[in-house]
Amino acid sequence: MLGIDIGGANLKVVDEGGAHIHYCPLWKEAPIREILKMYSADRDAAVVMSGELADCFSSKYEGIGYIVSAVRDIFPKAQFYGIDGVFHQEAVPELAAANWLVMADVLRGRYPDALLVDMGSTTTDIIPLNAFGEMKGQTDYSRLGSDLLLYYGLLRTPVSSLLREVMLDAGSVRVSSEYFACAGDAHLVAGVITPDEYTTATPDNTGPSREECLRRLARVVCADLSEIGTSQAEKIARQYIAEETGEISRAVRKVQSEYCCPGILTAGIGSRFLRQLVGGEDLRVLMGDLSDAMPAWAVREAALRTA
Amino acid sequence: MLGIDIGGANLKVVDEGGAHIHYCPLWKEAPIREILKMYSADRDAAVVMSGELADCFSSKYEGIGYIVSAVRDIFPKAQFYGIDGVFHQEAVPELAAANWLVMADVLRGRYPDALLVDMGSTTTDIIPLNAFGEMKGQTDYSRLGSDLLLYYGLLRTPVSSLLREVMLDAGSVRVSSEYFACAGDAHLVAGVITPDEYTTATPDNTGPSREECLRRLARVVCADLSEIGTSQAEKIARQYIAEETGEISRAVRKVQSEYCCPGILTAGIGSRFLRQLVGGEDLRVLMGDLSDAMPAWAVREAALRTA
Repeated sequence: MLGIDIGGANLKVVDEGGAHIHYCPLWKEAPIREILKMYSADRDAAVVMSGELADCFSSKYEGIGYIVSAVRDIFPKAQFYGIDGVFHQEAVPELAAANWLVMADVLRGRYPDALLVDMGSTTTDIIPLNAFGEMKGQTDYSRLGSDLLLYYGLLRTPVSSLLREVMLDAGSVRVSSEYFACAGDAHLVAGVITPDEYTTATPDNTGPSREECLRRLARVVCADLSEIGTSQAEKIARQYIAEETGEISRAVRKVQSEYCCPGILTAGIGSRFLRQLVGGEDLRVLMGDLSDAMPAWAVREAALRTA
Repeated sequence: MLGIDIGGANLKVVDEGGAHIHYCPLWKEAPIREILKMYSADRDAAVVMSGELADCFSSKYEGIGYIVSAVRDIFPKAQFYGIDGVFHQEAVPELAAANWLVMADVLRGRYPDALLVDMGSTTTDIIPLNAFGEMKGQTDYSRLGSDLLLYYGLLRTPVSSLLREVMLDAGSVRVSSEYFACAGDAHLVAGVITPDEYTTATPDNTGPSREECLRRLARVVCADLSEIGTSQAEKIARQYIAEETGEISRAVRKVQSEYCCPGILTAGIGSRFLRQLVGGEDLRVLMGDLSDAMPAWAVREAALRTA
């Protein structure tokens, strides 16, 4: 059995051997079929998705149809987990953004009272595992309205989405609204991640070295790095992280108290970073590298349970 | 004499016949030479630029070198206006972002006490024409620090750069930090611009119709338009515009009082919109379509004055 998670930016597969992560941006003619062909076609496949929101599709349903068709070309008997908590064989609207729900479905047996906080490259999901019934049927839109979904991720979030100005030695400086630097640049410069952990494309398509990240951060105030110096670019990184961690911490505390979840479980590529922020247990420690591909792992578990 | 303004997104040319605007995004292998070849090569050319900041260049100086070289391949005797207020023949650091200064240089004779407010597709420049000496030598970085440069433009600014959440009928809803919708979508839906005036690429590379703009605005809260309805997408547009106009109005009032400029001149493709906001005279009315290509017009005037 393969577990497959098709997001907007990454395609993740979990099998007996562990997790396999493929960068596969759907808005750039993603090679879904080519990637899936690398796995043996006569296997069972359980799939969950969130990539239907990519803006190459005029509606989520169009995106669902595209993804289901691509997967079934390679795995004709694939089954797809829906936001109603069951598997489907066909493209139905329920398949939109059920990746977070399948994690809740599988983990709630093991951690019945925990709040799951999952930070990926683009978003952070906050999921009370003791409220599965209430979670079923929730859309991205409803979750954005109740602090269960935040578009602050470890890597891809634009620095300019959280800062209108930065305080530098010279005083307050407005920022450019271009996509000049992202969360990955701030996290790398602050030592939160290593260049190896910067697994998505950079805003200017150059590398993830400290020097290149600093250069991108300087461009946020329309400056070359030589113009403002390393210390000022580091300040931009710190101010982004202060805003980001403030938003995430507040949302986690609010949801935790609303749903009375005593414990916290952190997950995703931002798991370690989250744990420093909000405490709790780190699923990456408990589950190893599978934590980087939790929805793919979970949809496989859910399918094995059903089979 | 040709006046040429090479920005990050547009290449503009002014000649005896008026203004010619070419969409020419530098971050996507911009066809500078191909565009310039459409103009007779044995003419004099005066050039001003801001495209050197595009992140395909590792530094502004690299960008200046690239642009100067491309222009001189077509116009070997081209001259380039610098932030020191004079023309140069070679690629020198002074050529970075002098487009706003050349406007001030040419307009200050005619409107000595006015504040020039120029809203383009990406930014808004606020320029006290009575302080030319103080303006010379200012960089984008220094202007971001003193409210003279704002990254709020008529078309390209991401909606998510000014909104962390929106108030909809259902209550407060967080927004996605993806580049799902831009200022152009908000302005079109609010009737500020027509589809013809939406002259840059849209975030999802579909068209500028009202329906398509509404669809992009709905995606800002991860929804299909059918999911939230037109009235909610219109609310997102209005809330973006409220934030944007607040930032611009405050900056204009601050600079106006700081430099004691009695009058205001609005310019650029956002000229009419700005005038509703801050009053004053509309350069587009005074100068016609040339107002859409003011730096190109101004660098031509400055060169004719020098010649």
